[in-house]
Amino acid sequence: MDFSSFITSLGTSFVIFLVLMLLFAWLSSKPGNNVIFYPNRILKGLAPFEGGSRMRNPFTWIKEALSSSEQDVIAMSGIDTAVYFVFLSTVLGILVLSGIILLPALLPIAVTDDGVKSNSLTTSNNTFNDLDKLSMGNIKDKSSRLWAFLIATYWVSFVTYYLLWKAYKHVSWMRAGALMSPEVKPEQFAVVVRDIPAVPEGQTRKENIDLYFKAIYPETFYRSMVVTNNQEVNKIWEELEGFKKKLARAEAVYAESKSTGKPEGTRPSNRIGFFGLIGKKVDSIDYYSEKINDLIPKLESEQKVTLREKQQDAAVVFFNNRVTASCASQCLHPQMVDTWTVTDAPEPHQLICSNLTIKFFGRELRQYAVYVIVTLTIVFYMIPIGIISAFTTLENLRKFLPFIKPIVKEQAIKTVLEAYLPQLALIIFLALLPKFLLFLSKFEGIPAESHAVRAASGKYYYFSVLNVFIGVTVGGTLFSTFKNIEKHPNTIVSMLAHSLPGNATFFLTYVALKFFVGYGLELSRIVPLIIYHLKRKYLCKTEAEKKDAWYPGDLGYGTRVPGDLLIVTIVLCYSVIAPLIIPFGVLYFGLGWLILRNQALKVYVPSYESYGRMWPHMFVRLLASLILYQVTMFGYFGVKKFYYTPLLIPLPILSLVFHFICSKKFYPSFRHTALEVACRDLKEVPNLERIYRSFIPPSLSSEKIEDDQFDDALSHVSRTGSSV
Amino acid sequence: MDFSSFITSLGTSFVIFLVLMLLFAWLSSKPGNNVIFYPNRILKGLAPFEGGSRMRNPFTWIKEALSSSEQDVIAMSGIDTAVYFVFLSTVLGILVLSGIILLPALLPIAVTDDGVKSNSLTTSNNTFNDLDKLSMGNIKDKSSRLWAFLIATYWVSFVTYYLLWKAYKHVSWMRAGALMSPEVKPEQFAVVVRDIPAVPEGQTRKENIDLYFKAIYPETFYRSMVVTNNQEVNKIWEELEGFKKKLARAEAVYAESKSTGKPEGTRPSNRIGFFGLIGKKVDSIDYYSEKINDLIPKLESEQKVTLREKQQDAAVVFFNNRVTASCASQCLHPQMVDTWTVTDAPEPHQLICSNLTIKFFGRELRQYAVYVIVTLTIVFYMIPIGIISAFTTLENLRKFLPFIKPIVKEQAIKTVLEAYLPQLALIIFLALLPKFLLFLSKFEGIPAESHAVRAASGKYYYFSVLNVFIGVTVGGTLFSTFKNIEKHPNTIVSMLAHSLPGNATFFLTYVALKFFVGYGLELSRIVPLIIYHLKRKYLCKTEAEKKDAWYPGDLGYGTRVPGDLLIVTIVLCYSVIAPLIIPFGVLYFGLGWLILRNQALKVYVPSYESYGRMWPHMFVRLLASLILYQVTMFGYFGVKKFYYTPLLIPLPILSLVFHFICSKKFYPSFRHTALEVACRDLKEVPNLERIYRSFIPPSLSSEKIEDDQFDDALSHVSRTGSSV
Repeated sequence: MDFSSFITSLGTSFVIFLVLMLLFAWLSSKPGNNVIFYPNRILKGLAPFEGGSRMRNPFTWIKEALSSSEQDVIAMSGIDTAVYFVFLSTVLGILVLSGIILLPALLPIAVTDDGVKSNSLTTSNNTFNDLDKLSMGNIKDKSSRLWAFLIATYWVSFVTYYLLWKAYKHVSWMRAGALMSPEVKPEQFAVVVRDIPAVPEGQTRKENIDLYFKAIYPETFYRSMVVTNNQEVNKIWEELEGFKKKLARAEAVYAESKSTGKPEGTRPSNRIGFFGLIGKKVDSIDYYSEKINDLIPKLESEQKVTLREKQQDAAVVFFNNRVTASCASQCLHPQMVDTWTVTDAPEPHQLICSNLTIKFFGRELRQYAVYVIVTLTIVFYMIPIGIISAFTTLENLRKFLPFIKPIVKEQAIKTVLEAYLPQLALIIFLALLPKFLLFLSKFEGIPAESHAVRAASGKYYYFSVLNVFIGVTVGGTLFSTFKNIEKHPNTIVSMLAHSLPGNATFFLTYVALKFFVGYGLELSRIVPLIIYHLKRKYLCKTEAEKKDAWYPGDLGYGTRVPGDLLIVTIVLCYSVIAPLIIPFGVLYFGLGWLILRNQALKVYVPSYESYGRMWPHMFVRLLASLILYQVTMFGYFGVKKFYYTPLLIPLPILSLVFHFICSKKFYPSFRHTALEVACRDLKEVPNLERIYRSFIPPSLSSEKIEDDQFDDALSHVSRTGSSV
Repeated sequence: MDFSSFITSLGTSFVIFLVLMLLFAWLSSKPGNNVIFYPNRILKGLAPFEGGSRMRNPFTWIKEALSSSEQDVIAMSGIDTAVYFVFLSTVLGILVLSGIILLPALLPIAVTDDGVKSNSLTTSNNTFNDLDKLSMGNIKDKSSRLWAFLIATYWVSFVTYYLLWKAYKHVSWMRAGALMSPEVKPEQFAVVVRDIPAVPEGQTRKENIDLYFKAIYPETFYRSMVVTNNQEVNKIWEELEGFKKKLARAEAVYAESKSTGKPEGTRPSNRIGFFGLIGKKVDSIDYYSEKINDLIPKLESEQKVTLREKQQDAAVVFFNNRVTASCASQCLHPQMVDTWTVTDAPEPHQLICSNLTIKFFGRELRQYAVYVIVTLTIVFYMIPIGIISAFTTLENLRKFLPFIKPIVKEQAIKTVLEAYLPQLALIIFLALLPKFLLFLSKFEGIPAESHAVRAASGKYYYFSVLNVFIGVTVGGTLFSTFKNIEKHPNTIVSMLAHSLPGNATFFLTYVALKFFVGYGLELSRIVPLIIYHLKRKYLCKTEAEKKDAWYPGDLGYGTRVPGDLLIVTIVLCYSVIAPLIIPFGVLYFGLGWLILRNQALKVYVPSYESYGRMWPHMFVRLLASLILYQVTMFGYFGVKKFYYTPLLIPLPILSLVFHFICSKKFYPSFRHTALEVACRDLKEVPNLERIYRSFIPPSLSSEKIEDDQFDDALSHVSRTGSSV
């Protein structure tokens, strides 16, 4: 890529960004779009924006985002989001502090040398351009100017250590603050018990559990809830809920027809066959009411059956204070570890019940199986795509899907399809990958939604770095400068070091595209806006349906964090080689911070709270990126034949020691709740009954069923010390 | 070593064994030796042997040892000893079950082939002997007879897995049984707290600790004891105790002189200078009484100073029930891990107070430093010995120690000294090594004596196996068949595989020597007997001194277990190659079991109780030996050019999986006390005051000092719920 095309691409991205910003300013001022641009505030019962509905300055959001404090973020979006901003601002800090020193120091040193001409190996595709003159590639081999770059490598590392240390400490106290809050949170009073052994003769499972925990916690045990196999009851409940929605819709249609058409209205009707397309035509309102009346007793009897007969070997156990629950989740209960496994409880709605019944060694086995599958996917992901591409040639498609024959006959369409079908497979694969990784993480037997998302996110990071970053760099080089590489030891590090400078402009463009277009789309919310308006016009009839149409979802950690980490990896690895990338990185994280601050405060609704447990994941991967950078720099100084290259060896070791110290000092309190935190006083005496009820799944919680009817799985055998 | 010298050496060992057995039968029947042969029973207040003092059959001890149950061992010598017997009987079981199949199956297969003649590489020093004909070395290369040996390799492995699994389960329940015993044991009510942060202004350290734990355990916290720097007070106390002993001795001498000499007696006297050799002569009784009278107030004032001003940042915290103490030792207390580290308390007399004050990261640092030192010692231990040998030549000795000049002039002595000085350095090094390793283990900051012994023992195992076993085999081969090895890939495994058969007879003799002479000396207790009688005659005057002279000490895990494990490693590695070693192994562990059973029941007094925590150490090292065996066999089948050698690859993997499963299932309950075990009822309401007092070091526990005078470190600030 030469200089002019780089400028062109940058300019295009910037124009797109400007257009999207203007669109946002215009669209967000329309009250009809409030549910798209301020849903989080609306759902929290606040006015869309402060100061009422008067005409707003279209740039007020910037001021609001900048002036918002961490406490505001926690209040509006929870600890997890606040931790994400700590991550963003830490990376921003690292890049700003690096840039302040590196840009004024290294650029003049690089530009006044003329290594590019004498050393054509390290330029982009062997053509010289102005950008390459600003990079370390322009320094001659063995030059003493390389000392400046070596010191810069150390500077970036130490800035990273310092800011990461501060951030870890800050996040740790933020987590502690949230956990010691005087608010009553149900998950802090409960633990999840798995691998309950077979019930002895003459006891129910519930008695068994209660006896076990009452013996250990005579004063603080409150009661237990046996986990049941809810598959059947969930199915009926979902069916019932579906019919209820359809009934509401039919009634809304009927009411509308009354006001628009004839005064007596048109009763809506539907067919009862395959997807409402075939079969007998019936009156919708009567039909759905009848279905609902049929299902309610069925649900009730299924609820009873489930509670009595479908008990599993897992339970949720409740205590009457937070310290005991935290203690219990950390302590070893059984003599043989594969029974009575006690772990901390996640928020009730996060609990993945179906995973609770997987046995101890089953979980271990699944975990290792998943590791193997993920490794294979990361390393060999091109193979299945290749196979799919091979099968989805036009010939095959014509054979299996005869109805596309007329389309394919057109020569123009044919050419396009033939060119894009392989890429299409890749795009579909990349789009499905996060979902696939999430599925795999859940398959491991992880009992909490947020934990599964974290695990999937970690896997996605390795995929991104290995394939996008290392793949693009090394892969590109393999084609372009294959002969040059053969002269050098053919290790991955030296290969990476060789290929980095050649791809600098590619990644500059990549980062720019990411923040201009990516964040532009993020802020303007064009896609959700269009979808919402289409749905509202043609599909939604009831208020509930409309809410579903604009409900914003959460920030999407699972893919956002690995994406950011990929940018960090790229910018860090190029920071010394081509310092010009640093301002781009600063823009990415600066703009990201600003725009996501707005989105967190006003748009996205967090779907769970894990009290900042994402942080250690981010930290480890940030540090992994740093080590990759240090190793790459070691390789690149080697390529430059610098005599003092071994001076870089302490850096990766230092990073490992830093990781060791941090994980020893900070990590344990992210795995468990520290007792000094759990022992803080509560605002009020906790209502244990409400805590208990919050863990009953919606399909089982019926107002009709009285407490004494909850025969086994939920029944209240013991009640000791129900107040703290 | 040829066959006749093997028989000679075996015969000699056996004769020595017989002589020692006869000596034992004769000596143990003399009542004057009871304190040497039955000290454990005497200290427990039992008669030396059941059935009174009538003449005993000299072989009754065999019957008694065989009929004793595990419960007897636990009652007389504790769980740790019982675990050691589980280890012995497990190894015995493995060897017997292996031998039953391997001996009748493999010996005929080996003896009817004639690979030795055609394949001189694998015989001892290239001479044929009858023993080599019974080994796998006698099988021709690529022979299909090797199938039998391959199956045998699997058989030995599976027998090991099965018996180890059973043993681990058994030991786990034994530990649980001991921990759930209704007896009150002080260490089950206490935890050790380290890394206490700086005390806030206006609080004493004790208040700080009490406040912290009362907040977390409002109902169950009993009180705390701040650890003090006892160096000074210990010195005074030891001096005082020394003078008390000397006074008692002087009084005994005086009383004796009254009865033997003049009726008014001779008052003993001593010099007060250097070691009682120079200086003024004084009357001993007066002198010591005066010294004691001087020291008592000094001790008292030092006690007060210590308790007030020498408080350290560590404490022992007491709870009023076992579950809370066990909980507390497992839970994370602080948000930042390098403060308020809580671990379980060992028995009071095991606590190494000086290690409690080492900081969190100091401990980590020391641990890694010790690992490095130990690795260097194991790998390069010959270097310092070489240096020492070089310095301790006769020339140097004559220069630095002039008084040995006349001795060295004798030609005969000179020759012997010159020949043995290097070996002497090695022997002294090997004798000091366990002490050095124990010192290193304590230096790591381990707070309990038993834990330090375990750690030292583990290190000694690696030293033994690496240097004695691998060193002897590979080292020997390096000299004898250096040329032959060069043809093959020069890896450690293939080298080991090559050298094993050649050293079979060496190790046969080694094992035989170990059990005949080693266990003969063990049972007959010749050395302690002679020392005791010499001391009794010439040194001991008081009963306390006599008791010190015969006090047996403990079983000596630290060196015994690594020694046994070395034998296991040798026998396992040779089990298939030269199955003849199995009967020797069976004899070693059979005799060992029998003789040590006698010693455990009657002689040794355990010096601590760690509730079987030694077992996981033994287990891991046994499994390491098994893996070494499997890898060696893989190498040796390779040497034999057997086509199906890769069929052995699953074995080491299987061993690792087995280790993984066992450590997941059983190990956690060895690290911590499982709560279901700790929650069992006690026989009586524990006397918390007595539990607390048992942790006061002897130098600080004075009857004179009242509770209220224990101003800070021990004072009784809070007392809540002092009954369970």
